[in-house]
Amino acid sequence: MSSPFNFDLIIKNGVVVTAADETECDIGVKDGAVVCLARNLPIPEGCKVIDAEGGYITPGGVDSHVHIGQSASNARSADDWTTGTRGALGGGTTTVVAFAVQAKGKKVMPAVEAYYELADGKAMCDYSFHAIITDPTEEVVRDEVPKLVDFGITSVKVYMTYPLMKLDDKQMLDILAAARQQGITTMVHAENSEIINWMTDRLLKQGMTEVWHHGTSRPQLVEDEATNRALALAEVVDAPMLLVHVSAKEATRAIRKSQTRGMPIYGETCPHYALLTAEKMEAPGFEGAKCVCAPPIRSDPLDNEGIWEGLSNGTFTVFSSDHAPYNYHDEKGKQASLYRQPNVPADRQFKNTPNGLPGICTRTPLLWSYGVLKGRISRQRFVELNSSNAAKLYGMYPKKGTIQPGSDADFTIFRSDAARKPSIITQDRLHHGADYTPYEGMEVLDWPRLVILRGQVVYDDETNTVLAEAGTGQWIKRGLSTLPGPRGTSKAWMNGFDPHKI
Amino acid sequence: MSSPFNFDLIIKNGVVVTAADETECDIGVKDGAVVCLARNLPIPEGCKVIDAEGGYITPGGVDSHVHIGQSASNARSADDWTTGTRGALGGGTTTVVAFAVQAKGKKVMPAVEAYYELADGKAMCDYSFHAIITDPTEEVVRDEVPKLVDFGITSVKVYMTYPLMKLDDKQMLDILAAARQQGITTMVHAENSEIINWMTDRLLKQGMTEVWHHGTSRPQLVEDEATNRALALAEVVDAPMLLVHVSAKEATRAIRKSQTRGMPIYGETCPHYALLTAEKMEAPGFEGAKCVCAPPIRSDPLDNEGIWEGLSNGTFTVFSSDHAPYNYHDEKGKQASLYRQPNVPADRQFKNTPNGLPGICTRTPLLWSYGVLKGRISRQRFVELNSSNAAKLYGMYPKKGTIQPGSDADFTIFRSDAARKPSIITQDRLHHGADYTPYEGMEVLDWPRLVILRGQVVYDDETNTVLAEAGTGQWIKRGLSTLPGPRGTSKAWMNGFDPHKI
Amino acid sequence: MSSPFNFDLIIKNGVVVTAADETECDIGVKDGAVVCLARNLPIPEGCKVIDAEGGYITPGGVDSHVHIGQSASNARSADDWTTGTRGALGGGTTTVVAFAVQAKGKKVMPAVEAYYELADGKAMCDYSFHAIITDPTEEVVRDEVPKLVDFGITSVKVYMTYPLMKLDDKQMLDILAAARQQGITTMVHAENSEIINWMTDRLLKQGMTEVWHHGTSRPQLVEDEATNRALALAEVVDAPMLLVHVSAKEATRAIRKSQTRGMPIYGETCPHYALLTAEKMEAPGFEGAKCVCAPPIRSDPLDNEGIWEGLSNGTFTVFSSDHAPYNYHDEKGKQASLYRQPNVPADRQFKNTPNGLPGICTRTPLLWSYGVLKGRISRQRFVELNSSNAAKLYGMYPKKGTIQPGSDADFTIFRSDAARKPSIITQDRLHHGADYTPYEGMEVLDWPRLVILRGQVVYDDETNTVLAEAGTGQWIKRGLSTLPGPRGTSKAWMNGFDPHKI
Amino acid sequence: MSSPFNFDLIIKNGVVVTAADETECDIGVKDGAVVCLARNLPIPEGCKVIDAEGGYITPGGVDSHVHIGQSASNARSADDWTTGTRGALGGGTTTVVAFAVQAKGKKVMPAVEAYYELADGKAMCDYSFHAIITDPTEEVVRDEVPKLVDFGITSVKVYMTYPLMKLDDKQMLDILAAARQQGITTMVHAENSEIINWMTDRLLKQGMTEVWHHGTSRPQLVEDEATNRALALAEVVDAPMLLVHVSAKEATRAIRKSQTRGMPIYGETCPHYALLTAEKMEAPGFEGAKCVCAPPIRSDPLDNEGIWEGLSNGTFTVFSSDHAPYNYHDEKGKQASLYRQPNVPADRQFKNTPNGLPGICTRTPLLWSYGVLKGRISRQRFVELNSSNAAKLYGMYPKKGTIQPGSDADFTIFRSDAARKPSIITQDRLHHGADYTPYEGMEVLDWPRLVILRGQVVYDDETNTVLAEAGTGQWIKRGLSTLPGPRGTSKAWMNGFDPHKI
Repeated sequence: MSSPFNFDLIIKNGVVVTAADETECDIGVKDGAVVCLARNLPIPEGCKVIDAEGGYITPGGVDSHVHIGQSASNARSADDWTTGTRGALGGGTTTVVAFAVQAKGKKVMPAVEAYYELADGKAMCDYSFHAIITDPTEEVVRDEVPKLVDFGITSVKVYMTYPLMKLDDKQMLDILAAARQQGITTMVHAENSEIINWMTDRLLKQGMTEVWHHGTSRPQLVEDEATNRALALAEVVDAPMLLVHVSAKEATRAIRKSQTRGMPIYGETCPHYALLTAEKMEAPGFEGAKCVCAPPIRSDPLDNEGIWEGLSNGTFTVFSSDHAPYNYHDEKGKQASLYRQPNVPADRQFKNTPNGLPGICTRTPLLWSYGVLKGRISRQRFVELNSSNAAKLYGMYPKKGTIQPGSDADFTIFRSDAARKPSIITQDRLHHGADYTPYEGMEVLDWPRLVILRGQVVYDDETNTVLAEAGTGQWIKRGLSTLPGPRGTSKAWMNGFDPHKI
Repeated sequence: MSSPFNFDLIIKNGVVVTAADETECDIGVKDGAVVCLARNLPIPEGCKVIDAEGGYITPGGVDSHVHIGQSASNARSADDWTTGTRGALGGGTTTVVAFAVQAKGKKVMPAVEAYYELADGKAMCDYSFHAIITDPTEEVVRDEVPKLVDFGITSVKVYMTYPLMKLDDKQMLDILAAARQQGITTMVHAENSEIINWMTDRLLKQGMTEVWHHGTSRPQLVEDEATNRALALAEVVDAPMLLVHVSAKEATRAIRKSQTRGMPIYGETCPHYALLTAEKMEAPGFEGAKCVCAPPIRSDPLDNEGIWEGLSNGTFTVFSSDHAPYNYHDEKGKQASLYRQPNVPADRQFKNTPNGLPGICTRTPLLWSYGVLKGRISRQRFVELNSSNAAKLYGMYPKKGTIQPGSDADFTIFRSDAARKPSIITQDRLHHGADYTPYEGMEVLDWPRLVILRGQVVYDDETNTVLAEAGTGQWIKRGLSTLPGPRGTSKAWMNGFDPHKI
Repeated sequence: MSSPFNFDLIIKNGVVVTAADETECDIGVKDGAVVCLARNLPIPEGCKVIDAEGGYITPGGVDSHVHIGQSASNARSADDWTTGTRGALGGGTTTVVAFAVQAKGKKVMPAVEAYYELADGKAMCDYSFHAIITDPTEEVVRDEVPKLVDFGITSVKVYMTYPLMKLDDKQMLDILAAARQQGITTMVHAENSEIINWMTDRLLKQGMTEVWHHGTSRPQLVEDEATNRALALAEVVDAPMLLVHVSAKEATRAIRKSQTRGMPIYGETCPHYALLTAEKMEAPGFEGAKCVCAPPIRSDPLDNEGIWEGLSNGTFTVFSSDHAPYNYHDEKGKQASLYRQPNVPADRQFKNTPNGLPGICTRTPLLWSYGVLKGRISRQRFVELNSSNAAKLYGMYPKKGTIQPGSDADFTIFRSDAARKPSIITQDRLHHGADYTPYEGMEVLDWPRLVILRGQVVYDDETNTVLAEAGTGQWIKRGLSTLPGPRGTSKAWMNGFDPHKI
Repeated sequence: MSSPFNFDLIIKNGVVVTAADETECDIGVKDGAVVCLARNLPIPEGCKVIDAEGGYITPGGVDSHVHIGQSASNARSADDWTTGTRGALGGGTTTVVAFAVQAKGKKVMPAVEAYYELADGKAMCDYSFHAIITDPTEEVVRDEVPKLVDFGITSVKVYMTYPLMKLDDKQMLDILAAARQQGITTMVHAENSEIINWMTDRLLKQGMTEVWHHGTSRPQLVEDEATNRALALAEVVDAPMLLVHVSAKEATRAIRKSQTRGMPIYGETCPHYALLTAEKMEAPGFEGAKCVCAPPIRSDPLDNEGIWEGLSNGTFTVFSSDHAPYNYHDEKGKQASLYRQPNVPADRQFKNTPNGLPGICTRTPLLWSYGVLKGRISRQRFVELNSSNAAKLYGMYPKKGTIQPGSDADFTIFRSDAARKPSIITQDRLHHGADYTPYEGMEVLDWPRLVILRGQVVYDDETNTVLAEAGTGQWIKRGLSTLPGPRGTSKAWMNGFDPHKI
């Protein structure tokens, strides 16, 4: 019978939490999708029933900024598509968006296709890619950006730093204009590369080369300047822009100001900027390398507070892991630098230490624990940050990011307040491929009890087991953003000029 | 049979819109409440079916700031509980929150009870009251505020202006502290009364007494100063506060700053501040009196923009009508002043013109039309402003303010984009008791096609008929706010001092 | 012979420093006034010559905020006009402006005349008064403010706190309007009295009565709120206003914002806000009482920095001592509280401890030492803060505040950089009447070597001797400010209204 | 006889105005320098006496930003050193600082020497140069910057725009660091070249090529972004920086913020940004080319107000002409573009129109008239802006910029308030070499009555005659700034790092 009530799975006894709402009701699932929300659903024969035990049923986590199987120029990733997505599921994330990188001088689509091949059949959770544009030639801008959209990639990322990645301001404008024309979002890594280079040069000359001088070489001003410039470029073009991995209070406030003025500006931050300080990077010897990332983790706890402020007040649109794993005990991992300057001790080569932290497993539990359970954000805001906003901004909504009829049956289920199960984060309980976690020894007040992907239980915390297989994850062909977009004008346009009129 | 699918009403063929989500699905209703959301709901025998015709089904409007049957010292209200709530339904509002006023020197609860009697059996839509505290004696603070909560009134309002209403800063602190202790919200009318009086005095001495000098006597600085002071008082006590009827950009920005810093500050604005300018008040003769309200409508269109900015960027929590109707052709209405200074022409007595506009009928259509349909806000933001946030802040959620299993079946249904029906606002199509509308002649791009209260169609735009009766509306015993509240500390507390520790 | 070169005193071998300039030249003085600036002045017969020894010759200090012989309701001043002005001279101050206080319910001029009598023939340095208005009746505003100007008092001070002093906002507007009409400046003590009272009440109820809770009862918010309100009131009236004794960064920034916008707003701060922190007030026992003043000294060194920022960037117009001396070992001094609550230990009665610090002797040396010699401000800025701006703002310029032909020959001479003479501040070297100094044990890098009043050496640091006598000081009949004043309009004036048109 | 009173010139009967002071006294001059200030100076035999007629004697004007004899890539200057400095004297300016330009790939000192030759013996007023650095190679930074200082050039200028001039951020840091090490000031032309190029490209593609689209191609955002970036770079290095020719409110406020925080940031603006709007540029045909400059004159009168605000509140350190004259009727002047795109009408080639306005003659009279006489600034502030601050910042003080013993006897004498002589600015009364003035037809309320250079009357307004000769002007070997400089640290320096320690 084709009744809408012919469920194959019912989740009972939970509180369904979405980005605005919260209700006690059952969820009827069929063929991997939510089909019904109601109380006291009758249980069809053969229907599986999961007891939420009074816990909170949230939409499956969407981690929209992860680097998987993407090796840097000087080091290899600790995760392939299987281990990375396994880690995701084990931490309550059912969808990830990774990055396909255009190489300078090459085209974009081949890089996308190659990266697609890499992931195909390997992923345990659902996935998509952003395209990193490093060479926005006229052809790229004219032909390939539309092709990306056709392919289902509706976001591009650009860098304002790193020699192999960096765009200049004109290239930024070109890509912002093309992105806006296609209705897609541009993600920006905002650090001023020339200040970094200049500072680095002087640090090296003064022999200040220890790992933690990675932080010295990239003071907040580096991020503040580039953020301000990126916002100006966005305004020239009236283009939607997401500032990725914002690390400190000042940049957060700059984004907030643009949002206050109604610009289509989005912000992203990550667990390490909310919870860690630069002290971690100053551990003796090479240990600090575990926490080297860019922008660097800041030294002032007031910056952690600033990040929480932005998480709470709405400045940040998404909360991502920026998972960029390099093994610590790996000569092609964090220790890669050893092989580049053989006569210099590893802990004196901050310039060559690969940038990045693993975080795909811990993102959701940390936000739930330090955000919701510590009283800093509401459960609704958690859902926005952990899932809904990424799904909306990146064109995966309402398939992902919510719990309503028609959505994928992706759920991350936490225990009820009474049944919370605090635990300590340790590397050996995580399911990623990296050989360490920067959160080793840190307590979380609860961990997702069950993770469900399209109706299938993929993680059970009881046994700490990931129950998916390589290939369980599906490619998501993404559409356009459903968040409010550009206003159609800019204070930078005068005398009737609109640069998009061409 | 007690099946959850034994609906007595199904809404089909609509897009269900909530504060975060939007999906095409049916709504199953039973006994006045939503019981099921699913696609293709089977229709039980005897079940009524309403075809949403592809339109948008939004939660019934909640107008959380209306004055009904509440006469001012110098004039009588144009609405009683029947006409006022009739107007509400005819404009898509299914719940109103009005005001019971403590008289100076008297107790609060008797005023609440008297006002309860006034409404009982008369209202066409659901309703509750806020309590206006004009005399926060120790007894009021200690005994009556808790009693209000028991009675189901979980919000108080205070005035920083008007001789019969005004509290001084100490009284404000007393009431803020009591409110915080009870977990309830304080609403504040923020205008500096002494500046107003001083300006008024000088205006009168200079013979500048025309109606529009109501605006001259209350420049924005009056609102800015009081808003800033109110925010400081809230911070001293770490108390949640809603600034009511914010009229201009500067005050909006001040609220935004507090929110940015994480304070539990809420903002309210009204249609007239978003859509009208002081020009209206400068109409020749006494006509301008129709648009006399406090704070006054501002003269600079940039202030309208500032209000829209706050509606769009999240600064404003709720969008209310501040319905305060005085008939224009009524010697106890707007013309009341005629009787107070008999030898002065009515249009030369701004000081005595009753403050207030009718707006209960037009609030929702204006926000939908000028907000959503003009592209200034999303449909999700519309739901927040029109319904959800008021329901949450004032403790009526999830009964009111959303569409999910367990909620009241209150719906305001708009036409689909293709079927929009533009029309002109005229007094004769409105259902309130007032004899004019300040929006006379203004176009709206659509009007609620159907309004449903607890499963019953109460307004049908086809015939422009309100289908409820006096007494259809029910009193709502309100609970506490479910929006994020105080942080539990304040930068005003030093050396271990917490003023609430007593 | 009537030649302009018939000097009776020549200062040679110094660097003449003014608020903008600096030159090596001689100063020719005759009859107590500067008559000539030139190099290599020939020395007439009988002319006295003072060798500046290469040091800096600055205009004699003007301390425009001192309380001398002005007893509080609960305590008596430690200084009469002779001891207070003796202290001034010994610290490089040649002119003071003290306060004549109107009592509530009484007239202003009699208080001025009585206070004039008190000083007459007693002062060692030149002097004038501000009038404190506590009761701005129509008569005061209409008749007495003009009389003050005739008398030579061209500044009034008002309080926003203290029961016996406090004006409400309307009274503030009245006095601001009258002051503006007369072209004079209003000084404002900005603290919100009602917050203080409310906090104090709760502190007492919680038994938090130690001396340092004086600070707890007056958090910065108290000053911030009142400062913001005062600035709003000034803007309503377009009146020049000086905010006295600003204590912290936030209020400093608020003043700066008004100045940025071009408003005629002036700021004053004092040595203790630049150099001390609340730690001083937290000394065990009653010792902390020595540093009880209002606004209180702040606890965060960032606030000291904020004060220096304002001293450096131009926000502060004048640097005064707010000398308000109460003896520590005096049952009618700091210990006055002992007699008011006999059964409570003195150190548990913050509420009754008289507010005020002695500072008249140390103001100038501290600013020179910690400002100029520590590199925070230029010598020009020192002259502005120590002397010129007060002379200009309070209508004593060019008689006081500069060194140019026609000015009084008042000089405070510091040693050259090479000849600096560091020393430790101790009570026994000071010449005031108080029995302690809050700066006991603090180092200064130099002390005025010579102080000259109208051509007469009145202090010689060689012997630490004040060489003046009671009566040496002269009353200064002040004129109007020569600093830029009101703009003649205000954003608070609309529709052609100007409140001063009456 | 060697008496200091053996004057060869006495100025009598004037009010001597300096940056802080103002007094009625005589000025005794000998050998071109001020030697004495006193009243009633006796007149030695043979001494010339000038009667100031009760007028204001201000220090001779210093115009610290002029382009003389400096041709652009596509056009030739309308002024050589004789005509340009003749214009200066005729407008009250006695000292100019022009620019010697390093060519890319060449050394700096040869360019300085060549430019020195060009001026030598030609100038009518005193003069110096800034060095424009276009190629800060290691050699330039290490060797030539110190040589500049030895030569007497203590300021460098860099461009953030123009292909032949532009430095990138790293080059900016290099030159800022070198400048700070030498104690000299860096001047910055702040416009983002890439935004301009991108906008220009799109404008050309859309056929929007009229002269006024010069403004469209360089919206304020272009200046705001670059200003913010320049300030960030200055902070990285803790270097003093002057932002030249600030054109609008937003950039003015950005500079103010840095100054508020205590950074050694200086601002410059010009008469055209204070007094003209873009309307001038929109004149029909090619007429608008007369007002093409960069940054462009802004369209919003609020920006004029913002400039006046900055002139009044102290944000701007100097007021310069940015004199950059191209003849209108000259095929190598403004019409140069005609010859570059022969088939396009001149008025459709905004991209090729030479940037620059003549202004050397009118700077001082406009500031006196529209600043002082219109009540926007005090006479003291006029002296700061017109003369003193430039003299101090650029190391010419106290030789230039004030009136005190030892200073050059440079005076610009205005009429007394009673004797003001309003007139209309017309090209035929000006003494520069350009063939037009952008202020044609504008009224000034007074014009300098007499201009005196080192004791010699060089301009007499009675006959509108410049009385100097080519060669009257002397080269000024400049020293270091005497304004407050760097603080010695920066918030960009962490972990003990100081980039200047190398």
